[in-house]
Amino acid sequence: MATRVFLSEDEMPRQWYNIAADLPSPLQPPLGPDGNPVTPEMLAPIFPMSLIEQEVSQERWIDIPEEVLSILAKWRPSPLHRAYSLEKFLGTPARIYYKNESVSPAGSHKPNTAVAQAYYNKQAGVKRLTTETGAGQWGSALAFASAQFGLECKVFMVRISFDQKPYRKLMMQTWGADCVPSPSTETQAGRDVLAKYPDTPGSLGIAISEAVEAAVTDPRGETKYSLGSVLNHVMLHQTVIGLETRKQLEKFGEKLPDIVIGCAGGGSNFAGLAFPFAHEKINGADIEIIPVEPSSCPTLTRGPFAYDLGDFSGMTPLLPMHTLGHNFVAPPIHAGGLRYHGMAPLVSQAVVEGLLNPRSIHQLECYEAAMTFARTEGIIVAPETSHAVAGAIQEATRAREEGKEKVIVFNLSGHGLVDLKGYEAYMNGELHDYEFPQEELDENLKALEGFPRAETVKSGRW
Amino acid sequence: MATRVFLSEDEMPRQWYNIAADLPSPLQPPLGPDGNPVTPEMLAPIFPMSLIEQEVSQERWIDIPEEVLSILAKWRPSPLHRAYSLEKFLGTPARIYYKNESVSPAGSHKPNTAVAQAYYNKQAGVKRLTTETGAGQWGSALAFASAQFGLECKVFMVRISFDQKPYRKLMMQTWGADCVPSPSTETQAGRDVLAKYPDTPGSLGIAISEAVEAAVTDPRGETKYSLGSVLNHVMLHQTVIGLETRKQLEKFGEKLPDIVIGCAGGGSNFAGLAFPFAHEKINGADIEIIPVEPSSCPTLTRGPFAYDLGDFSGMTPLLPMHTLGHNFVAPPIHAGGLRYHGMAPLVSQAVVEGLLNPRSIHQLECYEAAMTFARTEGIIVAPETSHAVAGAIQEATRAREEGKEKVIVFNLSGHGLVDLKGYEAYMNGELHDYEFPQEELDENLKALEGFPRAETVKSGRW
Repeated sequence: MATRVFLSEDEMPRQWYNIAADLPSPLQPPLGPDGNPVTPEMLAPIFPMSLIEQEVSQERWIDIPEEVLSILAKWRPSPLHRAYSLEKFLGTPARIYYKNESVSPAGSHKPNTAVAQAYYNKQAGVKRLTTETGAGQWGSALAFASAQFGLECKVFMVRISFDQKPYRKLMMQTWGADCVPSPSTETQAGRDVLAKYPDTPGSLGIAISEAVEAAVTDPRGETKYSLGSVLNHVMLHQTVIGLETRKQLEKFGEKLPDIVIGCAGGGSNFAGLAFPFAHEKINGADIEIIPVEPSSCPTLTRGPFAYDLGDFSGMTPLLPMHTLGHNFVAPPIHAGGLRYHGMAPLVSQAVVEGLLNPRSIHQLECYEAAMTFARTEGIIVAPETSHAVAGAIQEATRAREEGKEKVIVFNLSGHGLVDLKGYEAYMNGELHDYEFPQEELDENLKALEGFPRAETVKSGRW
Repeated sequence: MATRVFLSEDEMPRQWYNIAADLPSPLQPPLGPDGNPVTPEMLAPIFPMSLIEQEVSQERWIDIPEEVLSILAKWRPSPLHRAYSLEKFLGTPARIYYKNESVSPAGSHKPNTAVAQAYYNKQAGVKRLTTETGAGQWGSALAFASAQFGLECKVFMVRISFDQKPYRKLMMQTWGADCVPSPSTETQAGRDVLAKYPDTPGSLGIAISEAVEAAVTDPRGETKYSLGSVLNHVMLHQTVIGLETRKQLEKFGEKLPDIVIGCAGGGSNFAGLAFPFAHEKINGADIEIIPVEPSSCPTLTRGPFAYDLGDFSGMTPLLPMHTLGHNFVAPPIHAGGLRYHGMAPLVSQAVVEGLLNPRSIHQLECYEAAMTFARTEGIIVAPETSHAVAGAIQEATRAREEGKEKVIVFNLSGHGLVDLKGYEAYMNGELHDYEFPQEELDENLKALEGFPRAETVKSGRW
């Protein structure tokens, strides 16, 4: 009985899977401030055309360039583990598997898209990438990927994270990136905020504004902007996770899983594992697919599907997605990567159509699950990943109660070695759960008034 | 051309390699304070008998218990990487390989022996392990391993590290270990030191004293002590590294390497990779085997082979080893794991007999090598590991100058994600090199006066 299954490099997926080709109703376009669809040309100052083409592509399979594969091969295919120790601890008849994305140099799944984005930018003659980062996972992934292609990389890091997470900043600097606290004095957007609020802790919205401005105002025209989640091409690049997992489950002697679980913030690690299995489900397989989000940021479970802004300050187009309102401020839970007000349009639409069964779990249950996981399987997972672990434990416990041999697979999206402060707070009894009153959520959603309606409906097939 | 080669679990080594069976002259025994050899019985209050038997064993191959293998399988066999990006950067005809021990849950090679030691203690009915830790790598590895076997674990962490490295402490606590700063008020040894020096930053010597005392004074008799390097059984447990590497090199199409490199502090990661290749060398293969140590702690390159204490305060027996004197205090370089005054007796004797070619490298060159490695291969290595990287770069550069297709393999003993402060100091230009004047080293060695002489001589075969 194997504990882990690898694939050889020959068995790596050579194509990404694009779920947009298979969704029952077509994805609705992003809209500009005037309510008209955003055209590819309008995005050209921000992204290279090859990524814009992927963003709107209806092709089911898209080739992965050899140069991208050769860098992914530094840590991919990543291992799929059978969680024998956890199963034994839970006394469950379920067979639990987890895909270990923590083995990448940056410690998470984020480099899967960072490498692809750096490659396409390099191909387009871009010399420098800008981005924002909150918790720091994405900034460090893009810094790593930029070094692989000899690109300059500029990261605007939310000031409070910059101050609280010196190790993330040091990772970026070691890979040669320039990481500055946001708001900074380097952009008009940053200077404007600092003039008004010199002591602001910053926000992801402000950092996005700075990163986009730094890209589009480069006088040499050699800078583009890069985003680590939410967008269609980011989901696409992450599907290597699920494609590998399918092959590895076969090597374990499993046909298809009964239950697929990932944590969901912007949606990229979840989609990476889940979309290839959603493909099977669209083709008739019986699979329950569960995105797990924090109860304190219940985008999929309590937010409507609607057109909303991607950021606080309105720099982005309107996107059709589950949202809590672009002015929503999540409580300061430690899973910083899951505090986004919206959700990837592809994930959101798959929820509306009934392909996915979202669930929210409270922070304390997630940390308890993470502690159990560390002491059984041995890996200290990221606070974000703890939501997937908690979901898997819920399902394995249900399988025990029902006496069913379920096959459960979840995505171990990252390790928590650079984010241990949350564990400290949990062990010290300093964490609390928070459930939003409905009135408060409703109040936030008033910000959507006047925006066009998003039209997708439940397909009724699932 | 593969970037990484794995082995399946079926191909994992089932036996450890014991170089004591193959050294030209027999290993000299540890001596007690009276100058007489320490008998196995004298060690019984500290270690379980199965480990003491391994400590003195002359068997060449020792079976790895199934229970140990099943836990090692959570991350072993670890990958062997071909360093294409580094080779290209250096423009070398050498083929560079590295064994990636950073993929363990604790991020280094240390769990290889921690799991074995926890297993044998559990078998012997032990309920609780004590140990000391300086930089924190060993303490976290033993905490992880203790959780795997349901053992309690108590770690005495040198106070200055305890204060400076909160993440290491949090890792141990997450795995359920009790980690206290040393000197502590929990032992007589700790209380004595605190009474005299209430503001002491602590030392490894003091922490060892506390850990041993806490083991031998347990009124229930259910506590033993565990050590993470130096001892023969620790070297033994680490040989899975080199045994796997040999098989993986074959899969890469290589027969044997020309050059084998590891960083050396107490000696365990170096021995783990090198001893199986030293076995080939003893049997006639032409391999240069290089332990790399910091120039500021030049145990192998400038210290004599002599009987000396393993710790500062004389709690340990006299060991036959290369040493700078047990009162040697290394400068505060960031490779905390390489600041030990002595070296494993097995490594020391292999040096005296001419099997190994030790080398020292200065800190700045090591960090420069680590930065190059991070930006080419992508992995941020531990400050200790940077010495092996620097050694490999020296050899690859020489191969370029000589136009030779050398096969170089080194041990990537751990990642540096929890030890990034050293990188910060390097990038800020705050680090300096330090070369000890000979008089200073000579002065330290006066502490050895009156100790018995160690007798091993160069065999003349190499």
